[in-house]
Amino acid sequence: MGKGAVTRQTILEYAAGVASAAGLDGITIGRLAGDLHLSKSGLFAHFRSKEALQIGVLQAAAEHFGEAVVRPALAHPRGKARLRALFDRWLAWAADGDTLGGCIFVAAAVELDDRPGPVRDLLVSLQKAWLECVARVVRTGIATREFRAKTDPEQLAHDLYGVMLSYHHASRLLRDPQAEKRARRAFEALLKAAAAV
Amino acid sequence: MGKGAVTRQTILEYAAGVASAAGLDGITIGRLAGDLHLSKSGLFAHFRSKEALQIGVLQAAAEHFGEAVVRPALAHPRGKARLRALFDRWLAWAADGDTLGGCIFVAAAVELDDRPGPVRDLLVSLQKAWLECVARVVRTGIATREFRAKTDPEQLAHDLYGVMLSYHHASRLLRDPQAEKRARRAFEALLKAAAAV
Repeated sequence: MGKGAVTRQTILEYAAGVASAAGLDGITIGRLAGDLHLSKSGLFAHFRSKEALQIGVLQAAAEHFGEAVVRPALAHPRGKARLRALFDRWLAWAADGDTLGGCIFVAAAVELDDRPGPVRDLLVSLQKAWLECVARVVRTGIATREFRAKTDPEQLAHDLYGVMLSYHHASRLLRDPQAEKRARRAFEALLKAAAAV
Repeated sequence: MGKGAVTRQTILEYAAGVASAAGLDGITIGRLAGDLHLSKSGLFAHFRSKEALQIGVLQAAAEHFGEAVVRPALAHPRGKARLRALFDRWLAWAADGDTLGGCIFVAAAVELDDRPGPVRDLLVSLQKAWLECVARVVRTGIATREFRAKTDPEQLAHDLYGVMLSYHHASRLLRDPQAEKRARRAFEALLKAAAAV
């Protein structure tokens, strides 16, 4: 990576941390310039607008998610093992509020749901792609007969999203010490219902 | 209601609408005074601080939730009928983004999860009370043998929260036309698993 790319990466990682706490709207060129000791014009050279910065943050988080969650899970055998690996890593990602990622998609979803524009459009396409990725893992498990033929892959992806959101709510807001145990039980119940006998 | 109570109610309903779109942080005395054509000092007579206003909004939303969701559901027979009534009304509440309520608790949960203070404390106690209310409905269903004795009431309450959150995400962010159908399927699967044979 050249110096420019390193600076860009530093900015995005810092901005993602700001977004996790204060929302995507909390990312302003002025604030980042101050916190990172960069000139506003220097920041503008990397991101022409606040919107471009928000888009950059979401894209960087999605890439990170792909590397931390999706790619390693796909190395597991098709079917139950792969779905469990995907879920485990997803849960670990949701639990990790400190790094680029954590609750950034959950926070952004609530923040942007009624704000039309390119940032929302990107978030929607990223979330749809992720649900489709989960559904595809279920489909390959049906193809290899680990899951029952009548399992609905989109429904299961939707349900697993709910398990993650409920975990996020219980752990982040309620500080429920049982949050992870409850999430794993919910996952196992869904897996059992989908599994071929 | 006296004139003061009517004004207070008007302020809270308007503020709840603002909070649904812009978050609890979007409620400022200055903005409300401007939008409602009230003097700032008049607003201060009702709410001494922004925090008091946010607390008032959450309390009013919780009261409204009790009247719209909880009370009518408790009129249904114990067990499956009561749990279904509770879920139906909860879903209708989550779908209704225009009135006092809608997504206000979901939005507030994400907004406040890492902001300690009395507003967060109130939200946590309201959410815990709601989960306990759902768990209690499950418990009375176990007592009347409509639900299996080994059903975990807190787990089922946690899982139903996930169904609602996933519905909220699918309908509000993704504008998924299947959102409601998926939520009802998820509910029926959980109900079936809990039901006594």
